[in-house]
Amino acid sequence: MKVVSTSKSHGGVQGVYSHASEVCACDMTFAVFVPPQAKDGPVPVLWYLSGLTCTHANVMDKGEYRRLAAELGLIVVCPDTSPRGADVPDEKDNWQFGCGAGFYVDATQQPYARNYRMYSYVLDELPGLIGANFPADMARQGISGHSMGGHGALTIALKNPDRFRSCSAFAPIVQPTTAGWSRPALEKYLGADDRDWRAYDATLLIEDGRRFGEFLVDQGTADGFLDEGLRPWLLDEACKKAGIDLTLRMQEGYDHSYNFISTFMDDHLKWHAVRLG
Amino acid sequence: MKVVSTSKSHGGVQGVYSHASEVCACDMTFAVFVPPQAKDGPVPVLWYLSGLTCTHANVMDKGEYRRLAAELGLIVVCPDTSPRGADVPDEKDNWQFGCGAGFYVDATQQPYARNYRMYSYVLDELPGLIGANFPADMARQGISGHSMGGHGALTIALKNPDRFRSCSAFAPIVQPTTAGWSRPALEKYLGADDRDWRAYDATLLIEDGRRFGEFLVDQGTADGFLDEGLRPWLLDEACKKAGIDLTLRMQEGYDHSYNFISTFMDDHLKWHAVRLG
Repeated sequence: MKVVSTSKSHGGVQGVYSHASEVCACDMTFAVFVPPQAKDGPVPVLWYLSGLTCTHANVMDKGEYRRLAAELGLIVVCPDTSPRGADVPDEKDNWQFGCGAGFYVDATQQPYARNYRMYSYVLDELPGLIGANFPADMARQGISGHSMGGHGALTIALKNPDRFRSCSAFAPIVQPTTAGWSRPALEKYLGADDRDWRAYDATLLIEDGRRFGEFLVDQGTADGFLDEGLRPWLLDEACKKAGIDLTLRMQEGYDHSYNFISTFMDDHLKWHAVRLG
Repeated sequence: MKVVSTSKSHGGVQGVYSHASEVCACDMTFAVFVPPQAKDGPVPVLWYLSGLTCTHANVMDKGEYRRLAAELGLIVVCPDTSPRGADVPDEKDNWQFGCGAGFYVDATQQPYARNYRMYSYVLDELPGLIGANFPADMARQGISGHSMGGHGALTIALKNPDRFRSCSAFAPIVQPTTAGWSRPALEKYLGADDRDWRAYDATLLIEDGRRFGEFLVDQGTADGFLDEGLRPWLLDEACKKAGIDLTLRMQEGYDHSYNFISTFMDDHLKWHAVRLG
């Protein structure tokens, strides 16, 4: 692991790190905020998965999580959203596929299967690195994310309820298998048979019997992607049917940007902190 | 005035606007945050002047001022740091002069005198626009800034103590007339006679009899520009001699970045809010 940069912030340290990822077969960069409490022993870990076009840097710059994470004593880990580099197949002019658009799946199709394995990267390889190199209590992990990263958080939590004690999302893509901006990506990563996509769809995972204790979801009513791409009511229906406790808050007048995320970041941090103990 | 974008944030509105500036003879862009309290009538205005290389966007993205400004009821105005555009003379490879480096002076030398008039822009033209287009109580204004913008805030406050009720700075350049990174710019903007630069140097303005009630200055001890460029002890000496109340806080381990600024932004907002009533 290589230290790209560290900078003191709110009494803790905001760092950026890189490493040669085996899972993604390329160098990967990620951000970690370590709160001041970590001096006295391991602290809980909150994962934040970012949305389409983002790197680790967007939420680090605009998410406004450090003040309260420093107060609550949370490590915040912000991975990249895809493999990157000259050797990674990409579609340069397509923001909904390839670099910046890993969709937190393990691709099975060529030429993507070698690099696009963000599910395993976020679930296995990066936690190993975090546990080994940071004062992290890996028995207390929560997961959150925005948009494509909200989809990532929900699906990863549903498939790993023993790993994560808490899950929340900002404007998540709740049913990527039927949304126009995600179907082409899922087809290229996972193949033409959309039954193979169910494992990466929060609503269908619930339909297939996966469960998670409770979710907090915030969604802006002025979000331009609300009706076509996000559709939180589908998650609401699925959770109601399954008896999953979903706190879905429609936030009047908020859009899809980090102005929305940063406004409600405190609420999410508190949600996780309570559940991470 | 043209609306570039608006986005709801913390109950208020973060906007970006542009206009054809007469003073700078080019189009200028600026950011304004309007807090929710402005629905009920005019609210005080805090000016934030940014540092070298910045536009209006850096502090808007990374400054983390909206949460508390929304709570305290402050409009926050973030101007650009220089004129810009194809017709504006610049030195592309010099980050300490030209675009992004207006130093909040009114240039007297050619070819810069036509555009580089950031002192008058920030003091006269932009306040006119703010007063006319936003729910701003222009009788209650405070000013702050970072680095070059801290220099701007201190000098503008010292020359206009009746305009501003409060002034603070993050890692300000307190004596630009003797700092290596500002002397070449001042010479190009203001000419070879450095007596003409005194009007834009906080410590020399104080020596020349200018006064302001009190200053709050935060400075990181791990700031790479501390010894050569910033030297807050020179301001401390000048204020002590003049009987100006300076609260200078050396912040252990903090650097020159927005991680430093955002950490202490709340303290500065509170400082201004108390004084703006």
